[in-house]
Amino acid sequence: MNEKPFILVTNDDGIAAPGIHHLVQSLQPFGEVVVVAPDTEKSAVGHAITLSDPLRVTNFNKNGEWQGYAVSGTPADCVKIAVGALLPRRPDLVVSGINLGSNAGINVIYSGTVSAATEGTILGIPSVAISLTTYTDPYFDTAGRFAVKIAHLVLKKGLPPRTLLNVNIPNVPEEEIRGVRITRQGMANFAEFFDKRVDPRNRVYYWMDGKKEDLPESDDVDDVAIRQKYISITPIKYDLTNYEFIPGLQDWLQELT
Amino acid sequence: MNEKPFILVTNDDGIAAPGIHHLVQSLQPFGEVVVVAPDTEKSAVGHAITLSDPLRVTNFNKNGEWQGYAVSGTPADCVKIAVGALLPRRPDLVVSGINLGSNAGINVIYSGTVSAATEGTILGIPSVAISLTTYTDPYFDTAGRFAVKIAHLVLKKGLPPRTLLNVNIPNVPEEEIRGVRITRQGMANFAEFFDKRVDPRNRVYYWMDGKKEDLPESDDVDDVAIRQKYISITPIKYDLTNYEFIPGLQDWLQELT
Repeated sequence: MNEKPFILVTNDDGIAAPGIHHLVQSLQPFGEVVVVAPDTEKSAVGHAITLSDPLRVTNFNKNGEWQGYAVSGTPADCVKIAVGALLPRRPDLVVSGINLGSNAGINVIYSGTVSAATEGTILGIPSVAISLTTYTDPYFDTAGRFAVKIAHLVLKKGLPPRTLLNVNIPNVPEEEIRGVRITRQGMANFAEFFDKRVDPRNRVYYWMDGKKEDLPESDDVDDVAIRQKYISITPIKYDLTNYEFIPGLQDWLQELT
Repeated sequence: MNEKPFILVTNDDGIAAPGIHHLVQSLQPFGEVVVVAPDTEKSAVGHAITLSDPLRVTNFNKNGEWQGYAVSGTPADCVKIAVGALLPRRPDLVVSGINLGSNAGINVIYSGTVSAATEGTILGIPSVAISLTTYTDPYFDTAGRFAVKIAHLVLKKGLPPRTLLNVNIPNVPEEEIRGVRITRQGMANFAEFFDKRVDPRNRVYYWMDGKKEDLPESDDVDDVAIRQKYISITPIKYDLTNYEFIPGLQDWLQELT
């Protein structure tokens, strides 16, 4: 590759979040980076897209260090409008992150970070989601350096159809990382509860809250790998078909017709 | 089963939509039906959940024919708050729909209808999503009668772990349905474009628009089955791991460490 790769960077924590700033700074020596990201935080938006409202795009300037487009939509919207309207040419790679908080287990389903990478994949662009397993005191250097490594490898080797990489990085100094593990999506879920309250006008409302449950899963599961201080790379495919159940379901047909 | 099954009905078109009304009417002779659905339309919300705002719940009365709970959140929120706070006991089944418009191919990723069924599955409750392939002049009778058949079978036979059924029903009179086909999720995508406009205050905004592309896919694909007037049943699993790519990805490790 003679020219620098053209890299679209986005996230779900919003364009002003520190994680995307560190990702841009890490990738800039390696590629031509363009940022198109939500104008505010869009966590747990799943793979939402905005059809009922117009999308607004404003220029964003990060203290003179880089510029980008802030979009009044979801992470998936950002990738769609970047490729469909804002960028002068197709990106070679989409990198989404650096998210604060892991996107592992059931969380993958709700993740805006992963949905942006999924959208890149749908558009035929190799895509990676990067998350750091903390909400406080992030070791962005650990994540940023690994983001460059994985970006380089994805550009060199490509990815299978409909497949992105979901990368989770333990929040420790780089020398404490024990290695990299290829993992599968685990079952770790949230134990949810609803906090019922009454507002000053005597109307009932609920806050959703939850606590991640650590399951006794095997070492090749995303959540287990990161608990053991391994970087976790899960290949994620957006073909949701349960192929194993198709023969069993064929047997239902006689009772349905 | 001595008692009637306890069935949670939800959707993404909103509690006042005609599709959910027909679903409730179809299921009522068969089960004890409770409705918990979004208070307004929540299409293309993906698997979003609401963490940053409180959820409000209001009673909804459908012209004296049935009552339900209207929730100021997404379809996934509705299933979570139903099971976590509103219902007296766990439902035996979640049925989401009847959606207007198919949820096949790439659309499955964006679908609020499917996300509600996914949420039921995450909570360990057998779940089904029902969509009718039209936005106008819906044959709700065709969809409603099939919803009862499939609900009955799911309760009788159960579903594998992490798996729901995504049912798409051609919009024709029942006698024109050619049969039922077990399918896989296809690749049919939207050709998207962005309509750039200027508002009365001279600010630019964009409307996202798109046209579904019919691909020349094989007969066992969801979109093809419904075009051929078959009812399509796709088993959907929310384990997104691309297992086939794991060995290939293992080979990357030497270059990452």
